[in-house]
Amino acid sequence: MSDNRLQPLREIMRSQTLDAVGFVPGPNFRWLFQRDFHLMERPLLVIVPVEGDAVAIVPNLEMASFDSLDFPGMVFDWRDETGYASAFQKAAEALPQLMSASRFGLEAQRMRVFELMALQQVLPKVEFVDAHAEISSLRLLKSAAEIDLLKQAIRISEEALEATLQEVRVGQSEKEIEAILLRQLFAHGADGVSFEPIVAAGDNSAQPHASARHDYRVQRGDALLIDFGARWRGYNADITRTFFIGEVSEFDRAFYDTVLAANEAGKAATRAGATAAQVDDTVQKVLEGSQFAAFARHKTGHGLGLDVHEAPQIMRGNEQMLQSGMVFTVEPGLYRLGECGVRIEDDIVVTDTGMECLTSFPRDLRIVG
Amino acid sequence: MSDNRLQPLREIMRSQTLDAVGFVPGPNFRWLFQRDFHLMERPLLVIVPVEGDAVAIVPNLEMASFDSLDFPGMVFDWRDETGYASAFQKAAEALPQLMSASRFGLEAQRMRVFELMALQQVLPKVEFVDAHAEISSLRLLKSAAEIDLLKQAIRISEEALEATLQEVRVGQSEKEIEAILLRQLFAHGADGVSFEPIVAAGDNSAQPHASARHDYRVQRGDALLIDFGARWRGYNADITRTFFIGEVSEFDRAFYDTVLAANEAGKAATRAGATAAQVDDTVQKVLEGSQFAAFARHKTGHGLGLDVHEAPQIMRGNEQMLQSGMVFTVEPGLYRLGECGVRIEDDIVVTDTGMECLTSFPRDLRIVG
Repeated sequence: MSDNRLQPLREIMRSQTLDAVGFVPGPNFRWLFQRDFHLMERPLLVIVPVEGDAVAIVPNLEMASFDSLDFPGMVFDWRDETGYASAFQKAAEALPQLMSASRFGLEAQRMRVFELMALQQVLPKVEFVDAHAEISSLRLLKSAAEIDLLKQAIRISEEALEATLQEVRVGQSEKEIEAILLRQLFAHGADGVSFEPIVAAGDNSAQPHASARHDYRVQRGDALLIDFGARWRGYNADITRTFFIGEVSEFDRAFYDTVLAANEAGKAATRAGATAAQVDDTVQKVLEGSQFAAFARHKTGHGLGLDVHEAPQIMRGNEQMLQSGMVFTVEPGLYRLGECGVRIEDDIVVTDTGMECLTSFPRDLRIVG
Repeated sequence: MSDNRLQPLREIMRSQTLDAVGFVPGPNFRWLFQRDFHLMERPLLVIVPVEGDAVAIVPNLEMASFDSLDFPGMVFDWRDETGYASAFQKAAEALPQLMSASRFGLEAQRMRVFELMALQQVLPKVEFVDAHAEISSLRLLKSAAEIDLLKQAIRISEEALEATLQEVRVGQSEKEIEAILLRQLFAHGADGVSFEPIVAAGDNSAQPHASARHDYRVQRGDALLIDFGARWRGYNADITRTFFIGEVSEFDRAFYDTVLAANEAGKAATRAGATAAQVDDTVQKVLEGSQFAAFARHKTGHGLGLDVHEAPQIMRGNEQMLQSGMVFTVEPGLYRLGECGVRIEDDIVVTDTGMECLTSFPRDLRIVG
């Protein structure tokens, strides 16, 4: 592992007066230690104190993998048959600075309650605080190498989407189209998927987090909304395009063009020095200034990287200043419940003078099937 | 939703003197409400008091989906731009019985710390306890309909595995073989995957939770361990088979046959009335009584259903009595670090007189590629 990555972490800890932070497997863990582990019923935890060596609690089953980390600190392993309580106890004893009152920052959106309870058991005087945003800010500005990995994830995704569209036919179920997409993602080299894809047609497209249905077959005039992404070396693409099956009404075309205009306005408003809220405002103004104002439902976008939803959140009230190297989605949508939804989502990186759009799949309204 | 499923839950709550329990999206939520939701940065939470109506906290974005639940209680939605604190506050006010000292059971292996912290903020007098095992025991005995769904997940998995083996060749990377497997899973109709598959060859097969490598190409004499499963309507298959590429040494054959004998012994020891520990003991005795005793690393297996790792844990010290309708894996393994690992995993359901093995993929040593 690279000690240079612990240094910016400790700067954050000092600025937040945190005496220690804890990591479980996930995006921050991967960024710090360049390795993935399963996040399941066996706790695996790294504790980094602001000064002194880090400590790890590791299921014995994972020790061979963990050894390859070159972890700079003590490791306490535990076995299924004896449980993890004593490994937590030994870890706490190795951190005497936490035996008196101290502040311990957690990745509260990632760590589960049972891991916190195991920590509380052995560190009774510690105050545990949510430091998810502060810890994750380590990953806020992407390096050129990270951008390259994201570009690769996006290239795989876009090739898989084009291949999928070639196979889409009237009468297929949403689930069948989803299966084609997944097959094509892996055929094009995806390491994994960023999340379970959303493949939603007709009225289902109007639900922002729809699940593909087995029992709905796409028909002429339906919108077909596909929100998906390939994962590549841990980095996640997140792309949405909305197509129409066979034909499109003039009304739906105007609906689509409104979302497209909002997408373009959001990208045009992005540059280092603007705030996240300003980008969102620009997008919402296009939607709210249209005849379809009533159908806007959600914020403009979210950061993207080793996590699928991370900072910066591109939404009202977020006065966070955009900086060169931040990556986020611009994904305005409009949703006529029971009828039709359209979302067009690009992944962009902020530059000093504007932004670079990492996604290049065409956005013009396209009829498929 | 089915009120009949709240009834056994409330019996559990009474037996555990819990005044309320909380659910986030996941296996228990799905079992109770027959729906999936995303578990991401937006909290979605259902609170079921032991008496009186349930209460839900739902991101506005998910309201259309949530409405289809026919949820029997009050629903408080929240929007990104205003945050979720006031929805938690209103939910707490709708549960006046929790304003005084009371016990609140959590799915502590599923709920994240930030959701607990939001609850603690609005329910300051409540004691939160880990009731993961007790709540999940709702799902311990599988119905015939659930077994059918598991069988379907297993059928898809086994067909995909056979199709994958037809494509395996010397010189492919582990990642390439993983991509073939994933493509075949979706081509054969999987709804999703139970977990990211383990495709590990050569020395990597000796790491129980290996990740497929881009830079290792399988060669003659390698073990090829594949641990994977299709998901079907929420139910998860979990199957491991270990093959050899091109040829196998006599030593590795003896190694393999030891694991196979342990697998068979574990299945033969299973019946309603035996304990989980007895099944594990039988398996471990075969491994420990062999010339390869030093290479055993983990317990025999785990329960399987809507969750991939659930009760019963088939391990030393677990005196839980097996009952007809429990489903679990029997997955003994041996791991010679740096050299070769073998695991053979079946999914079985306990019956009054023994067990039914749900997996049928052949277990005889097979040379592939």
